[in-house]
Amino acid sequence: MLYHITVPQFIKMLHNLGHILDKAEAHSKEKKFEMNVLLNTHLTPNMFSLIRQIQIACDTAKLCTSRLSGKEAPVNDDSEKTLPELKNRIHQTITYLESFKEGDFEGAETRHITQPRWEGKYLTGSEFTLQHAIPNLYFHISMAYAILRSNGVEIGKKDYLGEMPYKK
Amino acid sequence: MLYHITVPQFIKMLHNLGHILDKAEAHSKEKKFEMNVLLNTHLTPNMFSLIRQIQIACDTAKLCTSRLSGKEAPVNDDSEKTLPELKNRIHQTITYLESFKEGDFEGAETRHITQPRWEGKYLTGSEFTLQHAIPNLYFHISMAYAILRSNGVEIGKKDYLGEMPYKK
Repeated sequence: MLYHITVPQFIKMLHNLGHILDKAEAHSKEKKFEMNVLLNTHLTPNMFSLIRQIQIACDTAKLCTSRLSGKEAPVNDDSEKTLPELKNRIHQTITYLESFKEGDFEGAETRHITQPRWEGKYLTGSEFTLQHAIPNLYFHISMAYAILRSNGVEIGKKDYLGEMPYKK
Repeated sequence: MLYHITVPQFIKMLHNLGHILDKAEAHSKEKKFEMNVLLNTHLTPNMFSLIRQIQIACDTAKLCTSRLSGKEAPVNDDSEKTLPELKNRIHQTITYLESFKEGDFEGAETRHITQPRWEGKYLTGSEFTLQHAIPNLYFHISMAYAILRSNGVEIGKKDYLGEMPYKK
């Protein structure tokens, strides 16, 4: 169950994130400003910059997947400073997620998930996914969206949600 | 399956939304400004105000639940203008969600979900939940958070996520 509610949708949302960044780049060229200025913009000074929002969104998807499957995740050093580097980070994360199959999530619901800052405490895989990973992923992608939108990039809810598999 | 990934977590997130609004109200009193100013604030002028973000978050949770269970949802006229009215809207929505049981979601995964603006097209219940309702709920709560945070309300990720059921 947890595979189906995470991996395919995480991949979709990371594609959507790449897509709104492409629109932001087109906007920066049209308005003649450096994309790096936008990448280093914060919604408010004590929130993370756009660069960090993207990195954390990628890590949230990566670490949710690795933890639920009990596999070691590749380490990222968060050194990205340019749009091509960030697009590459997103691409790498998508490739990583695509390497997982439903069977890799065997027993994920009840697996004990922890991280260093939890000081030995844990959540079950289901709790971690529903109450921590999914809300966090959407939060950081929404903050990236908010930074772009509040700086004049013309994006809308459809860009955030991506294509819907409508049927007739 | 869909009940477990929606109703309990939607209720939790609506409680969290009420909680950050309480913090915003305390902030407005401390800084001596009218809470209504904040409620009518937009992150950027062509995005929805805080009032609308709250109303849409409530409707997203309500309509996801009613559509998946095939029940008619109560209609809200979106007339809220004050914090008590908005807190009441959140409370009403939580009460509505709490009236559902797992059994009400029988067959929800494959149920055809549609809405007027989709012009006769539909999504399956699973598609609607994972690709539409859940991302939308987190989007609007994140935008409410972003409006508050960028206007000086001291809230953090823990307020957005709420309590975690950590175990030892």
